[in-house]
Amino acid sequence: MGKTDWKAEARALKKKLRKLLDKGAEAPAVPKKAKPVSPLAPASFPALPRIKGVEFAAVEAGVRYHNRKDVMLVRLAPGTAMAGVFTRSTTRSACVRDCQTKLAMKVADGAGAAIIVNSGNSNAFTGKVGDDAVAAVTGSVATALGIPASRVFSSSTGVIGEPLPHDRITAKVPALAAALTEAAIEGAAQAIMTTDTFPKGAAATVQGEGGVINIAGIAKGSGMIAPDMATMLVYIFTDAKISAANLQKMVSRNVGATFNSITVDSDTSTSDTLLIAATGQSAAAEVKGAVAKAFETALHGVMRNLALQVVRDGEGATKLVEVRVTGAASDEDAAKVAFAIANSPLVKTAVAGQDPNWGRIVMAVGKSGAQADRDKLTIRFGDILVAQNGWRSPDYKEEDGAAYMLQPELVLAVDLGLGKAKRSVWTCDLTNRYIEINADYRS
Amino acid sequence: MGKTDWKAEARALKKKLRKLLDKGAEAPAVPKKAKPVSPLAPASFPALPRIKGVEFAAVEAGVRYHNRKDVMLVRLAPGTAMAGVFTRSTTRSACVRDCQTKLAMKVADGAGAAIIVNSGNSNAFTGKVGDDAVAAVTGSVATALGIPASRVFSSSTGVIGEPLPHDRITAKVPALAAALTEAAIEGAAQAIMTTDTFPKGAAATVQGEGGVINIAGIAKGSGMIAPDMATMLVYIFTDAKISAANLQKMVSRNVGATFNSITVDSDTSTSDTLLIAATGQSAAAEVKGAVAKAFETALHGVMRNLALQVVRDGEGATKLVEVRVTGAASDEDAAKVAFAIANSPLVKTAVAGQDPNWGRIVMAVGKSGAQADRDKLTIRFGDILVAQNGWRSPDYKEEDGAAYMLQPELVLAVDLGLGKAKRSVWTCDLTNRYIEINADYRS
Repeated sequence: MGKTDWKAEARALKKKLRKLLDKGAEAPAVPKKAKPVSPLAPASFPALPRIKGVEFAAVEAGVRYHNRKDVMLVRLAPGTAMAGVFTRSTTRSACVRDCQTKLAMKVADGAGAAIIVNSGNSNAFTGKVGDDAVAAVTGSVATALGIPASRVFSSSTGVIGEPLPHDRITAKVPALAAALTEAAIEGAAQAIMTTDTFPKGAAATVQGEGGVINIAGIAKGSGMIAPDMATMLVYIFTDAKISAANLQKMVSRNVGATFNSITVDSDTSTSDTLLIAATGQSAAAEVKGAVAKAFETALHGVMRNLALQVVRDGEGATKLVEVRVTGAASDEDAAKVAFAIANSPLVKTAVAGQDPNWGRIVMAVGKSGAQADRDKLTIRFGDILVAQNGWRSPDYKEEDGAAYMLQPELVLAVDLGLGKAKRSVWTCDLTNRYIEINADYRS
Repeated sequence: MGKTDWKAEARALKKKLRKLLDKGAEAPAVPKKAKPVSPLAPASFPALPRIKGVEFAAVEAGVRYHNRKDVMLVRLAPGTAMAGVFTRSTTRSACVRDCQTKLAMKVADGAGAAIIVNSGNSNAFTGKVGDDAVAAVTGSVATALGIPASRVFSSSTGVIGEPLPHDRITAKVPALAAALTEAAIEGAAQAIMTTDTFPKGAAATVQGEGGVINIAGIAKGSGMIAPDMATMLVYIFTDAKISAANLQKMVSRNVGATFNSITVDSDTSTSDTLLIAATGQSAAAEVKGAVAKAFETALHGVMRNLALQVVRDGEGATKLVEVRVTGAASDEDAAKVAFAIANSPLVKTAVAGQDPNWGRIVMAVGKSGAQADRDKLTIRFGDILVAQNGWRSPDYKEEDGAAYMLQPELVLAVDLGLGKAKRSVWTCDLTNRYIEINADYRS
């Protein structure tokens, strides 16, 4: 017991350093170890179309991180329709509650709107001072841009339970307002990252009546991912002419099969927010009829693309896994089985170890609470038939399963053989890196 | 891509070795690396009282493991009352189904009974050949001991989906029968281990009318622990005079707060089995009245002790954590919150990192689905008040929390401030070692 606890020692040192930095000391110029980028990351940030009426800016405000941009501002032109979906967590953050209140007010679109987001601090479970911080930040943006505070939406992501140093953000609002430009979406995507290893963007275009309609979105998310209504922070912009009510309907309809079908670690954030803004500045006529269908399909594609990028950046992920459940007796049962498999630590560690351990899929089906019959179950790895009729298929060769598991993207398919309901859920593997990232996240 | 995949190479070599061993080749005399014992293990296996009418034997049958005992046999004298609880998994194993059928037959106690258990193969999801294997093993024991097969109970634990090489077990039944002795309970506890790092035993004595009543139990379990009705494999023996019906009532009443209140990794086994046998050979009179109460209390103590030993041996565990929820609006809500915290990978990795990250407890309360009010929530680490009134307590010092987290046994207490319902759940931390154990379990 008399031995030095080097871990505690290191933690104490780290804390001292943080305190100095928080007091405004210059960060020491230590060469930073490059953060490893997820092996599942896209080759580069995509080229996103500029959306008329949407401008971005990002700055370094030192909310928690140093030497990087950590606040983004979006200005939305007068006439922009807004909609959103949010976490249902009972301990959701002050900004989530504020966004919900403001969207419910249905303020006329004429005034324009804004979104301000910081990383490094989630302003969740911070009581009354949390609410005050939201009021200070959104009020400051309202003043700088000349729009009502009721049209300024905010998100915060990062550590829970620490007071948000909102004066560091408000001090940068004039600079943000001065820097706004239609071209700066990639910088905005970078500013909202926490444990993310790459910025996430996606886009689509739709042929409208009399012109093209553009959609561009950005997202952040890597851990605490098991969305309930929406995931993490997602902002989607379009120049479509569409009412707030129709926009809300569309996004609500499509969130189930996209953001609500991913899980990194079964833990649901207190900050999940998806906001969508339609400026109406496309040359195309109001979205309706066949164009509405095409627009919704394109929107679904952008949402799905961003959702899968979140899984690709799952903390410590080396594999992207689709769990594809078919033949369930009900939609509820299909979801139960899909999430039981996708959230099982034993399935996820087997995937990490490239072990075709299909017995753990059987286990997860069994524990899910869904109706299941051992003898009607079929399991496939991609196209490889692994098990059916209550046992391993006689044609299955372990070598084939082992070879399949070496790939970076996998489909684990389960047919319950009972009905027609189905559900796909995307997840990643569970590796040592996840533990490393999360065992000492705050220090 | 042309590089050697050393991992695949190692896997292939391991597989070749396994095949040779399975064909009966002598295991090469490689000096074994000692398996690390859990830092939370008791100092030694406890001295357990002999239970009159209960005899044990264990052998090395080479079901899957080599150089260790892997099958145990228990003979129970004529007059023994039996009861049990089992997993509710829809993919539960052939032996679980067989035990349930046999207990439901309520065969007269006169004939005596037996329990045979193997480790290394769970005989789960093995279809018709799995049922045949159970019949072969239990039939062989029935013949050797001269009791009806309907009184021979069996369990199998280990890999799912591989055919049980039952001939290796039946070949050893005569040797097992010849070796039976009241003293051999520790060897039995060792024979049923899989990824366990220590054998688990617990005992209690109760003063009955006219004599002492003894209770002794053994258990195995380390991963795939989120019991549903019972956990893993547990066998409890007593010399009490008590009917099978009363024994069943008692064990069912006490399983909720013991085995069903632990979780290592939220994954529920296909093999969970708890069998209890009362030989009636104590000098004490039949258990009733005040003795029944004392007996049930002692039984609860043995069950709780064994359950906590399973958590202490949780795969990779370095911390034993009690999640203590009070003030819930309903029993269901208390359980939801307790398991949401105990199963959260982010809470468990924070505990592993000795990080007093109470924000993640707030997150888990929020996602649990239980009624909760941010401003009524109180969080304590042991006796340290951490958060209340919707935020961190003004008296809380991070250093106190950090010092508390250094201990090997922790209490994370949450009061919801809404009602009187409560629930305690025990879990362990999530470490790199869990990943290592499970990423390559089958190779």
